[in-house]
Amino acid sequence: MFRTHTCGDLRLSNNGQQTTLSGWVQRTRKMGGMTFVDIRDRYGITQLVFNQDVNAGLWEQANKLGREYVIQVTGTVAERSNKNANMSTGEVEILVSELQVLNESKTPPFTIEENTDGGDDIRMKYRYLDLRRTNVRENLELRHRITFETRRYLDQMGFLEVETPILIGSTPEGARDFVVPSRMNPGEFYALPQSPQLFKQLLMVSGFDRYFQIAKCFRDEDLRADRQPEFTQIDCEMSFVEQEDVLNLFEGMMKHLFKFVKDIDFAEDFPRMTWHEAMRIYGSDKPDIRFGMEFVEIKEEVSGHDFVVFDSVPYVAGICATGCAGYTRKQLDELTDFVKKPQIGAKGLVYIRCELDGTFKSSVDKFYSNDDLKTIAAKMNAQPGDLILILAGAKVKTQKALCELRLEMGAKLGLRDKNVFKPLWVIDFPLFEWDEETQRYYATHHPFTSPNLDDVPLLDTDPGQVRATAYDMVINGVELGGGSIRIHESELQNRMFELLGFTPEKAQAQFGFLMSAFQYGAPPHGGLAFGLDRLVSLFAGLDTIRDCMAFPKNNSGRDVMIDAPSKIDQSQLDELNLVIDLK
Amino acid sequence: MFRTHTCGDLRLSNNGQQTTLSGWVQRTRKMGGMTFVDIRDRYGITQLVFNQDVNAGLWEQANKLGREYVIQVTGTVAERSNKNANMSTGEVEILVSELQVLNESKTPPFTIEENTDGGDDIRMKYRYLDLRRTNVRENLELRHRITFETRRYLDQMGFLEVETPILIGSTPEGARDFVVPSRMNPGEFYALPQSPQLFKQLLMVSGFDRYFQIAKCFRDEDLRADRQPEFTQIDCEMSFVEQEDVLNLFEGMMKHLFKFVKDIDFAEDFPRMTWHEAMRIYGSDKPDIRFGMEFVEIKEEVSGHDFVVFDSVPYVAGICATGCAGYTRKQLDELTDFVKKPQIGAKGLVYIRCELDGTFKSSVDKFYSNDDLKTIAAKMNAQPGDLILILAGAKVKTQKALCELRLEMGAKLGLRDKNVFKPLWVIDFPLFEWDEETQRYYATHHPFTSPNLDDVPLLDTDPGQVRATAYDMVINGVELGGGSIRIHESELQNRMFELLGFTPEKAQAQFGFLMSAFQYGAPPHGGLAFGLDRLVSLFAGLDTIRDCMAFPKNNSGRDVMIDAPSKIDQSQLDELNLVIDLK
Repeated sequence: MFRTHTCGDLRLSNNGQQTTLSGWVQRTRKMGGMTFVDIRDRYGITQLVFNQDVNAGLWEQANKLGREYVIQVTGTVAERSNKNANMSTGEVEILVSELQVLNESKTPPFTIEENTDGGDDIRMKYRYLDLRRTNVRENLELRHRITFETRRYLDQMGFLEVETPILIGSTPEGARDFVVPSRMNPGEFYALPQSPQLFKQLLMVSGFDRYFQIAKCFRDEDLRADRQPEFTQIDCEMSFVEQEDVLNLFEGMMKHLFKFVKDIDFAEDFPRMTWHEAMRIYGSDKPDIRFGMEFVEIKEEVSGHDFVVFDSVPYVAGICATGCAGYTRKQLDELTDFVKKPQIGAKGLVYIRCELDGTFKSSVDKFYSNDDLKTIAAKMNAQPGDLILILAGAKVKTQKALCELRLEMGAKLGLRDKNVFKPLWVIDFPLFEWDEETQRYYATHHPFTSPNLDDVPLLDTDPGQVRATAYDMVINGVELGGGSIRIHESELQNRMFELLGFTPEKAQAQFGFLMSAFQYGAPPHGGLAFGLDRLVSLFAGLDTIRDCMAFPKNNSGRDVMIDAPSKIDQSQLDELNLVIDLK
Repeated sequence: MFRTHTCGDLRLSNNGQQTTLSGWVQRTRKMGGMTFVDIRDRYGITQLVFNQDVNAGLWEQANKLGREYVIQVTGTVAERSNKNANMSTGEVEILVSELQVLNESKTPPFTIEENTDGGDDIRMKYRYLDLRRTNVRENLELRHRITFETRRYLDQMGFLEVETPILIGSTPEGARDFVVPSRMNPGEFYALPQSPQLFKQLLMVSGFDRYFQIAKCFRDEDLRADRQPEFTQIDCEMSFVEQEDVLNLFEGMMKHLFKFVKDIDFAEDFPRMTWHEAMRIYGSDKPDIRFGMEFVEIKEEVSGHDFVVFDSVPYVAGICATGCAGYTRKQLDELTDFVKKPQIGAKGLVYIRCELDGTFKSSVDKFYSNDDLKTIAAKMNAQPGDLILILAGAKVKTQKALCELRLEMGAKLGLRDKNVFKPLWVIDFPLFEWDEETQRYYATHHPFTSPNLDDVPLLDTDPGQVRATAYDMVINGVELGGGSIRIHESELQNRMFELLGFTPEKAQAQFGFLMSAFQYGAPPHGGLAFGLDRLVSLFAGLDTIRDCMAFPKNNSGRDVMIDAPSKIDQSQLDELNLVIDLK
């Protein structure tokens, strides 16, 4: 038996008990004839005491312990004279009578502390040591808790978790697939799923009624900071439901998670906002509503004052930063630089300071009188002491830039507290997006998304105006999940394929088995999928999904710890009938 | 709103209520002016009534409904005059006032009934229809329940579920890997994991203490009836444990599953048997102990009677089939044919009938007197009326054949009841297996399995005798799971590699990152993995794991429903720098 307690178990109530602990040496401190060793495991840290006067041999052994040695000790629980209120075991220490080194350790390449001295690269190479750090491990404990509670809720709601296959067929449309050569079927390939979308719809055809799966998904895309080649979705689908049923059930799931994982109660319904409204007020389909600072369009108010910048563009809008009238020239220049960054792309920034004395000071004083500015300030509901920030240009591009400026200001003003959670449903997405380059419509979600049935007549006359029965759950500006009611009638589905430029042959080749399935009695159905990695990141207050994955890959898709991918043997290539041809 | 109740909800207590149901048309029966329609969903079947006298138009509509049409009906719950005790809703029917066809259906290619008329191939092609059959769906409901209860138990026990990556590196040793070409790392490949073995051991090095994962695993092997290229393991690992800790914890898990999934209580501890004992008594490392019929070695008793078959071989053993003395010549010939099948490989079968009058009749009467046979029968503890079946030959091969014969007799005698569950731990496996062909030792489990520390001295003198700290859980002759205590000291690990013929370079190339990790303080650890597919099959009483997977592949590794694997586009191959070279 390696231990009677964990390193997080012992309390003053155990005083005088004999105990055996196993764990890692966190640190040792020698103070004269006393040596203190902190022993650590997943559950906590306990202080061990070795006294030269009591047992000189043991004390000498203790002095030889290195960081991260694995040890087993037996001793007596004693009350500490110098208590540590920051540790759950801080009231006790162990007077050690036996010590065994279970394993030695080389000195780790970085400190195993919350604030480690290790950089990103070395921590990834030694991820198994990085995972020893309490804060990293806690992210994975949180992930476990979230998946467990997700399953508990969905099970209560009658959902069945069904595993769908990982080795499936490749679909050229959409993001790039990872493919897997088949040895038994020479020249043919499996693909790894980008999502279980088609399978979950098949399960609805099968009458499974309520399906979910916490599913690995794969996309061979060029990686950005917050993308991983493999990621995890909470994938769900229901039959005989309308949008309202889906929203209610998954709002319930999110409330359950907040309650049982974060101990946060949401008494109120989550607010809902149409996509058009979200774009108008926040310039984003995933607005952060922890703070206001809503867009106000002022094209009408600013026009006709010979300011060509405003006169020549279709869209002028501003936000009002409460209490920021005192911003210095330098601060305003920084904001101007911010909006002019290429990834934001504004040409410039106009500001109006609403001074405390009721006057106004702006970067466009030349064109606007104090009264003009007063009118603008009134439209924006700005108060004395506020700062108005205005962008102008093409509508969509300017909304996007103003959205970034709003988020930046929210961050500067401390309005984006990671411990405050503001959920929101964004609904009524447009069914189609027009692509200028290829001059055709694309499905905003996917080709199985049902139009709002009220808008079906518009499919013929004005497809761009058709609303989808699609919805996203957004929390704090993060799109956590989204889905739609699916088309279950083949006539409407064929119509959609036509509008999306699929020939019947192409639709058959790509979705043939789903189309066939739908001929045998498909029920009305809909669902959604949550990004688990994002959800955990949000709950953990992390900036990247990488920190909530045990073994993430870097931006080149490499696992630097195990050094994968790697070359394979010629015999493996031969068996697969493959030749590598590096250009 | 598509429904107020499911098709399994309504009872006599709902009598008189208005209800709306949605589901599939199971069958329609026209009886004069009355038409009865059974509507089905996941939850049950409810009888609908359409009365020509009440609403002729609706009745006509109902008469047009085809099998598997998706319909929605509204009506009033009424008590049935002709109650059906086999259905949970059998006391009521719905007097329908509204009917809507939500979707039509082509006539399915086979009947959606427990005993369908569809053969295997057509059911796999239309798996989404096959899954509508209640018995198939119930297997997947059971699978959901088992994974849910597994997680509930392990969570209670402090285990964390951690997702390990699917895109890892290839390890040439062991079974064949599926590989995934990397586009971003030209000429390099990921591999799909055969198990999360290395990662779970790394998590122990990371101090995760108790890990589990219900994990997809992949093996590119030629498929047999009961193998699938992707399968699922309940994968577990613990730190600071000895074998006893692991066995207790997972015996607890299995008892939990039996209790909460099958409502079966196991009061007693699971019996344990050494590998040597299992081989001696049952000729198998996964004995079915639902019945006795133990092997009795009788080489001593049968030798020296000029029967060259018995005299010339090292091993003679028999089993005693209770009450089978009356077996006819034909039955005995069938048994002889059975043991002579190539996959069993015995040369012949000797029988002794223990007649009710105390005499004996055998196929070797020529060599053995009645007294000789009596001695053998006594050794075998055979009673009048029993049948003794004897095989002879090389020990291991004969044990294997006698094991098959025992199982066959057990089945014939009805001793292998699928509703009786007899668990067993098999322990003390040999650490090494000697391979005649390559003249070297292989690890019986894997190279990280710890020897029994008492046997370490034998590593030098007689490796074949070294017991591993390895264990299997066997139920009803099925190996459900197995594992071991791992080696955590690098010295012993290096010793193992040496014995297994790994050069230090090869060990480094293949397990380098694990070996490196072990230098930073690896705790003593051990674990095991259960085959989820087998576990579900066992609980469901199925003969193959395929029936408990939603979308299995056939023996050529094909998913015939989605027609995968398949050819991919030239552009995909080009991006991956691959050329197909079919020999």
